Amino acid sequence: MISKESLNHHISQQFNTELEEVRSHLLAMGGLVEKQVSDAVSALINADSGLAQQVREIDDQIDMMERNIDEECLRILARRQPAASDLRLIISISKSVIDLERIGDESSKIARRAIELCEDGEAPRGYVEVRHIGEQVRKMVQEALDAFARFDAELALSVAQHDKIVDREYKTAIRELATYMMEDPRAISRVLSVIWALRSLERIGDHARNIAELVIYLVRGTDVRHLGLTRMAEEVNKPRD
Amino acid sequence: MISKESLNHHISQQFNTELEEVRSHLLAMGGLVEKQVSDAVSALINADSGLAQQVREIDDQIDMMERNIDEECLRILARRQPAASDLRLIISISKSVIDLERIGDESSKIARRAIELCEDGEAPRGYVEVRHIGEQVRKMVQEALDAFARFDAELALSVAQHDKIVDREYKTAIRELATYMMEDPRAISRVLSVIWALRSLERIGDHARNIAELVIYLVRGTDVRHLGLTRMAEEVNKPRD
Repeated sequence: MISKESLNHHISQQFNTELEEVRSHLLAMGGLVEKQVSDAVSALINADSGLAQQVREIDDQIDMMERNIDEECLRILARRQPAASDLRLIISISKSVIDLERIGDESSKIARRAIELCEDGEAPRGYVEVRHIGEQVRKMVQEALDAFARFDAELALSVAQHDKIVDREYKTAIRELATYMMEDPRAISRVLSVIWALRSLERIGDHARNIAELVIYLVRGTDVRHLGLTRMAEEVNKPRD
Repeated sequence: MISKESLNHHISQQFNTELEEVRSHLLAMGGLVEKQVSDAVSALINADSGLAQQVREIDDQIDMMERNIDEECLRILARRQPAASDLRLIISISKSVIDLERIGDESSKIARRAIELCEDGEAPRGYVEVRHIGEQVRKMVQEALDAFARFDAELALSVAQHDKIVDREYKTAIRELATYMMEDPRAISRVLSVIWALRSLERIGDHARNIAELVIYLVRGTDVRHLGLTRMAEEVNKPRD
């Protein structure tokens, strides 16, 4: 079982510092990515093309952060040859950055849709759904990162459970927008832009869930991917030694 | 610089065998995933719901392969503490499996669309594009894996370059299908299914490109993500020591 305390008992103080540093860089990248999600959704809903442009520019910073964290992980693997929970921490970090980078990518795609929609003027259908699903997936990203920061497997489990709700709401929203397109074919191209934004939000939820699964792996040592929510919950709630 | 020869010069024959094994498991998983792409596209185009069902069932095997390869990589990292090109090999394998698993997921999604479309009967627009883009991304997956098998950075570069062509053709196809929806609103729901399948194919191309970038990293030691194709080509074609 990993805990903040066990991490602090390293023989090498220097190694300890390096692990803490890379973890704090991951959380800083996560904070910026979470802001990108929230800004991209605001830009779309408020037809704010300036904010959308800013989201697209900041995406380069996120790519750079991914690259730097990857290099830190590689350096630690090569020089420190971590084992057991330290190795799990490095693996979890190096996989989580991939998901964070993709969340950044999806935010940038939403910003591109926002710019398209700004040019159109009129606010089309689906904005209520974008706002609602957008707020939920932003919260999932935030909680997945909190779970990482606090080694909290229960919170991670609740993020994975939330993803199922988001998937259901996403499907309902898409069905409604398809019906709306049939009723008003002139709106098809605008509604398609909203559909793509919703799709990106649904993907962001998937990536938050991936990070949550990595937290469970980190804390409990069990790979819970593809297990289904019931078995995942059993793993998290299993009595500990 | 890594080569098949340098990999064969390990002091420990056992370590050598382990590295070769995990690499061959990755390539076996890749072979199955490539077949999933091709079967999913056939199932959609030929309205073959049996084949689509098979693709969805085989996806579980792919998830299991990912999990096993991950465990092998972790074991090698913990016990062998690889350095330099061996470490890059393990990192490239553990990242490539993520992309292969996602390609499997997208194939499974295409199969689900195939089943929806089978129920509808009539072959809608967009099948020519699905066939054409499907064949291109299948070939990208195949070549990315060949590049991995042969440590071939030039072939990997050509996969990344091909992704740009696929992205352009994908955008054209989506625009045409949007126009078609406006002309025949009754076809909207069927055409949306085809659009989702095309979207999955475009994502498969992105994942093949990711694997190609990992091959370049493995062979040349340079992280070429987010560099753009021109600088990527410079890195690959740089004179070697």
